[in-house]
Amino acid sequence: MFLAKVHVTLRKSILDPQGKAVEHAVATLGVVGVDEVRIGKYIEFRVDGKSEQEAREAAEQVCRKLLANPVMEDFSLVVEPQ
Amino acid sequence: MFLAKVHVTLRKSILDPQGKAVEHAVATLGVVGVDEVRIGKYIEFRVDGKSEQEAREAAEQVCRKLLANPVMEDFSLVVEPQ
Repeated sequence: MFLAKVHVTLRKSILDPQGKAVEHAVATLGVVGVDEVRIGKYIEFRVDGKSEQEAREAAEQVCRKLLANPVMEDFSLVVEPQ
Repeated sequence: MFLAKVHVTLRKSILDPQGKAVEHAVATLGVVGVDEVRIGKYIEFRVDGKSEQEAREAAEQVCRKLLANPVMEDFSLVVEPQ
């Protein structure tokens, strides 16, 4: 059994309106010096597999086809034994 | 200048309907052996501060008051020099 940890982030060139909203909200909180807020997703799941290699391939397929939008987002994947 | 990296995750005891939806979608993709999908947020932002301590305090305040819902979510925060 393996645990997959996935970070999905918007590409640098893509505007992040959710991040901008957080920046404005931070300012109203009275906290200064916060900027360049970028909001992404963090996904964890369990993957079955006979080997780490096999689990990694299944997890990568899930990332490519389901979790990340390849036009706008990048993902990074870590698979570790559980 | 410091970079704050925040993971916001649903508490273990809280149901994750978004994760369940991904599990079903994974099954329709034909990928087997994926379960316990949990979907959280990953947020990065820049924080100004004279020291790492000061930047960390500002970042923690942002997490507590804005990014994480303390009733349902946990957060982990890493602040590193940039």
